[in-house]
Amino acid sequence: MKALVYKGPGQKSWEEVPNPVLKAPTDVIVKMVATTICGTDLHILKGDVPEVSAGRILGHEGIGVITEIGEGVTQLAVGDKVILACVSSCGRCSNCRKGLYSHCEDPEGIAGIGWIFGYMIDGTQAEYVRVPFAENSVYKVPEGVTDAEGILLSDILPTGFEIGVQYGHVAPGDVVAVIGSGPVGLSAVMTARLYGPSKIIAIDLDDARLKRAADFGATNTVNSGDADWKEQVLALTDGQGVDVAIEAVGIPNTFTMCTQIVRPGGHVANVGVHGKSVDLALNELWIKNIDISTGLVNTNTLGMLLKLVAEHKLPAEKFVTHEFGFDQVLDAYEVFGNAAQHDALKVLIH
Amino acid sequence: MKALVYKGPGQKSWEEVPNPVLKAPTDVIVKMVATTICGTDLHILKGDVPEVSAGRILGHEGIGVITEIGEGVTQLAVGDKVILACVSSCGRCSNCRKGLYSHCEDPEGIAGIGWIFGYMIDGTQAEYVRVPFAENSVYKVPEGVTDAEGILLSDILPTGFEIGVQYGHVAPGDVVAVIGSGPVGLSAVMTARLYGPSKIIAIDLDDARLKRAADFGATNTVNSGDADWKEQVLALTDGQGVDVAIEAVGIPNTFTMCTQIVRPGGHVANVGVHGKSVDLALNELWIKNIDISTGLVNTNTLGMLLKLVAEHKLPAEKFVTHEFGFDQVLDAYEVFGNAAQHDALKVLIH
Amino acid sequence: MKALVYKGPGQKSWEEVPNPVLKAPTDVIVKMVATTICGTDLHILKGDVPEVSAGRILGHEGIGVITEIGEGVTQLAVGDKVILACVSSCGRCSNCRKGLYSHCEDPEGIAGIGWIFGYMIDGTQAEYVRVPFAENSVYKVPEGVTDAEGILLSDILPTGFEIGVQYGHVAPGDVVAVIGSGPVGLSAVMTARLYGPSKIIAIDLDDARLKRAADFGATNTVNSGDADWKEQVLALTDGQGVDVAIEAVGIPNTFTMCTQIVRPGGHVANVGVHGKSVDLALNELWIKNIDISTGLVNTNTLGMLLKLVAEHKLPAEKFVTHEFGFDQVLDAYEVFGNAAQHDALKVLIH
Amino acid sequence: MKALVYKGPGQKSWEEVPNPVLKAPTDVIVKMVATTICGTDLHILKGDVPEVSAGRILGHEGIGVITEIGEGVTQLAVGDKVILACVSSCGRCSNCRKGLYSHCEDPEGIAGIGWIFGYMIDGTQAEYVRVPFAENSVYKVPEGVTDAEGILLSDILPTGFEIGVQYGHVAPGDVVAVIGSGPVGLSAVMTARLYGPSKIIAIDLDDARLKRAADFGATNTVNSGDADWKEQVLALTDGQGVDVAIEAVGIPNTFTMCTQIVRPGGHVANVGVHGKSVDLALNELWIKNIDISTGLVNTNTLGMLLKLVAEHKLPAEKFVTHEFGFDQVLDAYEVFGNAAQHDALKVLIH
Repeated sequence: MKALVYKGPGQKSWEEVPNPVLKAPTDVIVKMVATTICGTDLHILKGDVPEVSAGRILGHEGIGVITEIGEGVTQLAVGDKVILACVSSCGRCSNCRKGLYSHCEDPEGIAGIGWIFGYMIDGTQAEYVRVPFAENSVYKVPEGVTDAEGILLSDILPTGFEIGVQYGHVAPGDVVAVIGSGPVGLSAVMTARLYGPSKIIAIDLDDARLKRAADFGATNTVNSGDADWKEQVLALTDGQGVDVAIEAVGIPNTFTMCTQIVRPGGHVANVGVHGKSVDLALNELWIKNIDISTGLVNTNTLGMLLKLVAEHKLPAEKFVTHEFGFDQVLDAYEVFGNAAQHDALKVLIH
Repeated sequence: MKALVYKGPGQKSWEEVPNPVLKAPTDVIVKMVATTICGTDLHILKGDVPEVSAGRILGHEGIGVITEIGEGVTQLAVGDKVILACVSSCGRCSNCRKGLYSHCEDPEGIAGIGWIFGYMIDGTQAEYVRVPFAENSVYKVPEGVTDAEGILLSDILPTGFEIGVQYGHVAPGDVVAVIGSGPVGLSAVMTARLYGPSKIIAIDLDDARLKRAADFGATNTVNSGDADWKEQVLALTDGQGVDVAIEAVGIPNTFTMCTQIVRPGGHVANVGVHGKSVDLALNELWIKNIDISTGLVNTNTLGMLLKLVAEHKLPAEKFVTHEFGFDQVLDAYEVFGNAAQHDALKVLIH
Repeated sequence: MKALVYKGPGQKSWEEVPNPVLKAPTDVIVKMVATTICGTDLHILKGDVPEVSAGRILGHEGIGVITEIGEGVTQLAVGDKVILACVSSCGRCSNCRKGLYSHCEDPEGIAGIGWIFGYMIDGTQAEYVRVPFAENSVYKVPEGVTDAEGILLSDILPTGFEIGVQYGHVAPGDVVAVIGSGPVGLSAVMTARLYGPSKIIAIDLDDARLKRAADFGATNTVNSGDADWKEQVLALTDGQGVDVAIEAVGIPNTFTMCTQIVRPGGHVANVGVHGKSVDLALNELWIKNIDISTGLVNTNTLGMLLKLVAEHKLPAEKFVTHEFGFDQVLDAYEVFGNAAQHDALKVLIH
Repeated sequence: MKALVYKGPGQKSWEEVPNPVLKAPTDVIVKMVATTICGTDLHILKGDVPEVSAGRILGHEGIGVITEIGEGVTQLAVGDKVILACVSSCGRCSNCRKGLYSHCEDPEGIAGIGWIFGYMIDGTQAEYVRVPFAENSVYKVPEGVTDAEGILLSDILPTGFEIGVQYGHVAPGDVVAVIGSGPVGLSAVMTARLYGPSKIIAIDLDDARLKRAADFGATNTVNSGDADWKEQVLALTDGQGVDVAIEAVGIPNTFTMCTQIVRPGGHVANVGVHGKSVDLALNELWIKNIDISTGLVNTNTLGMLLKLVAEHKLPAEKFVTHEFGFDQVLDAYEVFGNAAQHDALKVLIH
């Protein structure tokens, strides 16, 4: 089969590789119908994620059709069209039973965490993929859900919803700020509406991205390049700050911005992937009755979000700005890797 | 009347001052029956809290009898014996309606936060005290509750319970670690039992304090001076860390220790008062699905905890190690200020 | 002043009565700007509520301007335009502190429950009204909120939201059924959207009401006069039943219908006012893992809902179908009392 | 092997039957080490549960050692000593993912609900048993947990805790009433302590059972045969009623008693198995802001409770009053079936 293979820092190739085979009775093999590229894939390609070895097939999002099932699989069948969760999880360990799939204790001994596709094992930017713990890690595609909708369920929509909106405890009437209007930030903007906030403020440095955020459901936008960005945000509240501040960038400054605009009793939900530690002003915050959450997506809301997409309650298809064939995957990387220039958000490879 | 007056950094005096008078229709005047000293009082005396002016009467904990009531007070009467919450709150603003009394929006314009006694207004180490917003800020002492029990309800028990145990989301079966075995840490140890944890691990540098922690309900103790303190803690869990880590010291190192022993999906509850910012390893923690909470006590559980004390379900009286008369308040400061030397925990002045 | 006075079963009069006066320091007097009629007023007029004495001024919903304040009132001023909660509550008793305003323990000794206007004390269908415990029981009208919007906040919107949607634990992705499309049922339909359900099924015997329900946000409608109404409902679910069934009629049959369509693990929220006991099939339901809730509105979400109305997130104005002047109050009763004939929902008297 | 076989109404036999065999890749075979008898078994024997066919092996509680595993089982091994949950569940269907194991959607098509042992399939009063969906339905026995402790985890402890205490939302400071002091009622009494109530009131007609309830943790007891039983209960509250009333009998009268003693804002948790419908006074209760829950145990807290038993935080061993060998199972039935006469609570067969 053909697959997108990481060849070491800065190098990748769409090349012929052996087909995957079943390794455990809980595995299935899926023929990919659609996949996409995530910012994490770009990080790996740069060499920022040293635990990824050369030779690894990249990708952790995708839709496909089951072609083989392990002998322990009773609830899936060959021919089922399924969405692959970006996180693989056994569903039985004590973490999984709490819905903490991202910290599956991994009885197969594959890796320390639930995210393994395109990282610890071969991923989804390929014609076929082996899916471990398949019964807990794939979801049948309901009638009427397109690939352009379904592909968002693998990672982006659950990440924004679970780690941003749910960990941020968004509640009816709240004022919510989302810093960063990339795919995950926009997912938080879109899914925050599921808890009836009174305002969703998108904050970003780029006016084009803010314009898109408004289209995704932001009721207000603030350009954080403005000297008075913070005053602009506070003016949209009762003066005490936002109820929930969601960090969707992954740098110290945007995290600190969240702690500065959150009201007493409010929540900071960090969604961004951070490469550095941050200075936390606990001398000011100890008295503020806030909480700060972090997390990797569990995809334990994937099924629920899929139901909302199927009912046209979440316009997931808005994320896909460009489409490519599987054999154009290198072009897809070119476009996604220069997203601002191409005005790209998510690319669909199918 | 006589009161303990802050005379500027390093100086205090038990001296004659004018009696307090009603200022607002929601005030009451209370004749103090018992008070105590808090670590915060020592900080103020050192000059660490510059917003406290010389001339301020210290103290924010106490029990007394109402001697005068404002004309808007309908639910309290002269003669009622009451416990004073350390936090004053109107009960009507939007923060108070959420139970966030510590961030009362302060319609009287007295101060920015709910803690004002012995800080922004005169406090409880006096023969009489004016209590603002009294109906929301005092609690009648039930039959059979002694002063040595009741005095703990003003601040220490609610602080450990609300900001440590509740913000830490302690749940049945949890392994809970409490770093710091001073009064507030011991309050967290004692009240954690209200949510049925499987283990409560007290962590401190001082073996004498750890011994006391065991008496207060810790099931295990670890001396954090040991090189392998962290391994000792992890060995008491399933290897993944504690469900809840409560910080009850207030320095960067103990906070960081909490983030190092908490399991994926766990909680860090900061109770300590911090004077410095801390370095938060968000590069490691972003993926850990934890939350970190901060807060000043709301005293919104004071009534409930008082009920448990009255039913002898919480041995609050264990905290009081020394007793003094009001005119011995300087001796009480001497003992409490050198707590280790005197093996003192809380002093009762009555 | 003029007021609508209950004169005994079947009799009412718009007549001259003495102006109300302050009785407690926590009272205010409000000059009414707008009021409306509730189904409960019709019940009282029929003589169904024997504890209401002849001579009582009816009405428990309204907007007005404060003309006098008690000496204990510090957070309201003469001239404030306010919405009156239908429930009066002290805000300090143990029930009020839990947000259970409908069961205020009533320190003034007025009545056993929080709803007293137009029942135990004179109500809002009058030129002036005395409001007990005003600071906890009125809400300032924000800029840009009209009387036709604000009047819904006194009772209808909070009732549907608190007792239907919140007690029913509506959650994102849920299928919600609302039986009864009168004002309160439609409030549940409208406010259910604040928790992101996938479907809201309105169920009623009257197609005209169902049509209106669709306009209020129902995604599906089922006429319960159809022999297969239940199959129609189940076909809109995965076959196991609805996640939440809200009863908004108040008769045994509609309550039983709720217990028949709720899925295992689901919720039945009773909002209707019942005059009879019902037969509960505990022999079938004991194994079903459901809960059944009841309740009188607390109005503890009034402020939050008002914020959403001010932000145009809830189209409250849709409820008002007819408008009258105060001196046309008898005409308003005629129209509201024959709602089906006039296609009336709520009448605004202003 | 030998097993206890139901031979039709009123008849049972300890007789030779074929050994069970693996039927699905998710099955295991367990050699029983200990089992017990439940009240439900007596009902089946009386013929009250017509869906149970003659020839069925009874029993749904037990501890054993795995002797064979299906080819899809990766997390259990031959030789593991395990506790069998009384409920079998796949762990993957949408109900199981919510922790609603008792309503497993049953992909194997065995039965409509999660309780199948000794009901729809052969049970645990046998030398060997086939366990479906084993990875989600058995729990390894930790070091130091005896059979007399572990046997309580199959059903009794989780039932009292999940359906009584958790569905009843017991919270610190609460006054809890438990009607019925049989095994399940006593389990609710014992496990209610995990949420720090101020009082646990046991209510029963039999003073001997009430005495045992006190030993299990009840702080107060009331004999419901007393004419003033209700006044006795209310006198133990602030006069408004109990926060949580748990029904652990299963007849209309005890259910109604619960609705009569619960306070506004409180909870009624029905645990009893009911054979008749009940008259629910919705005409009185609609205004009371209560909720009423029902349910079959999910055993989703079995692992957590087992941890508490292993830490000696729950004295599970108190339940076992009599012990028998497997070949004395008919004697065990004789004793358990005449529990009052033998002062029996639970019998351990091992």
